[in-house]
Amino acid sequence: MSDVLTRLGNILEQRKGADPADSYVAGLYAKGLDAILKKMGEETTEVVMAAKDGNNRQIIHELADLWFHSLVLLAHSGLSAEDILAELEKRLGTSGIEEKGRRHLKK
Amino acid sequence: MSDVLTRLGNILEQRKGADPADSYVAGLYAKGLDAILKKMGEETTEVVMAAKDGNNRQIIHELADLWFHSLVLLAHSGLSAEDILAELEKRLGTSGIEEKGRRHLKK
Amino acid sequence: MSDVLTRLGNILEQRKGADPADSYVAGLYAKGLDAILKKMGEETTEVVMAAKDGNNRQIIHELADLWFHSLVLLAHSGLSAEDILAELEKRLGTSGIEEKGRRHLKK
Amino acid sequence: MSDVLTRLGNILEQRKGADPADSYVAGLYAKGLDAILKKMGEETTEVVMAAKDGNNRQIIHELADLWFHSLVLLAHSGLSAEDILAELEKRLGTSGIEEKGRRHLKK
Repeated sequence: MSDVLTRLGNILEQRKGADPADSYVAGLYAKGLDAILKKMGEETTEVVMAAKDGNNRQIIHELADLWFHSLVLLAHSGLSAEDILAELEKRLGTSGIEEKGRRHLKK
Repeated sequence: MSDVLTRLGNILEQRKGADPADSYVAGLYAKGLDAILKKMGEETTEVVMAAKDGNNRQIIHELADLWFHSLVLLAHSGLSAEDILAELEKRLGTSGIEEKGRRHLKK
Repeated sequence: MSDVLTRLGNILEQRKGADPADSYVAGLYAKGLDAILKKMGEETTEVVMAAKDGNNRQIIHELADLWFHSLVLLAHSGLSAEDILAELEKRLGTSGIEEKGRRHLKK
Repeated sequence: MSDVLTRLGNILEQRKGADPADSYVAGLYAKGLDAILKKMGEETTEVVMAAKDGNNRQIIHELADLWFHSLVLLAHSGLSAEDILAELEKRLGTSGIEEKGRRHLKK
């Protein structure tokens, strides 16, 4: 099931040639980076509200929206989900996810 | 490579029994939901700034942080990456990702 | 000029009895808290993007939007700008705004 | 009381010459724009969480933090609270705050 990110990424690439009038994603590309980033901010706020409500069905819905728009941002930037998964894989390696966490704490 | 989300999820489950003093993630669990959500907000702001800088290396870094903390939120809520991937898979089905997009536009 | 916050607050109070079809703010009240908070998240993302663009005209526009929706949230919560100004006044007192800042750093 | 924004703005200007080791605000200036914007994102997430908790005391605290960091951003950008208040004043004029709201809805 996890290759859904790759298949979604392929669809998002194809949408680069689509008519903004016919495709939500093509419309986002046409509006440009700020429109995509605005959606990232919106979806994160919705994740926070769903989690505060303790509504798991809504958490899933809003996190799916957030990840979906992450994929749009990646496609718009010439990147893909594989870049994120590779980065997470790297953190799972010798240095460990926890060391990553510690770096976080020092921010 | 894409099973990294599952492996990370397993590690995040194990951390539920860890000492907050030894583990960044156990520390987040101990602080509770608001601390996790605060990280979600922080990481999204950092994604936005990295994208405005046009810094792809930083976009990858910050999106990996955002997805990582999404996994922490999922684990804390008794959910997993599979729930998000299944939701995205469903949207790829008959109704199509674009119909999902249109629903978005009407929000 | 600074009493504009008070005058805006008075208008926002009056809008509580307005028809959502006639008034943007009455529409926000009718949609409820989540709609107001979603606007807070949106406007902050727009402030961040305007600042990254170094566009002072846009920073003013988006911060005005953010403060405006802060006033809507305050009215919706039975609070007012005076509560925020009093809190800021308190921090300007003996303990000092910097001590407040230090408390922040320890969060 | 409402001139507290002006007095705070004056203090924030003075802090531009302070030692980052002695002053929270001077420390933010030294870290640069991204550090200030990160605080904006953080404080907005905290406002959202406080409002979802229905905790009015906390809403005041977090909105005061958000407005405080708005003032830091304004000072860093060579702007001041007066610019925001003038913009809000303008919207209160002939065109009306509601027309402003309608423009919003069309975004």
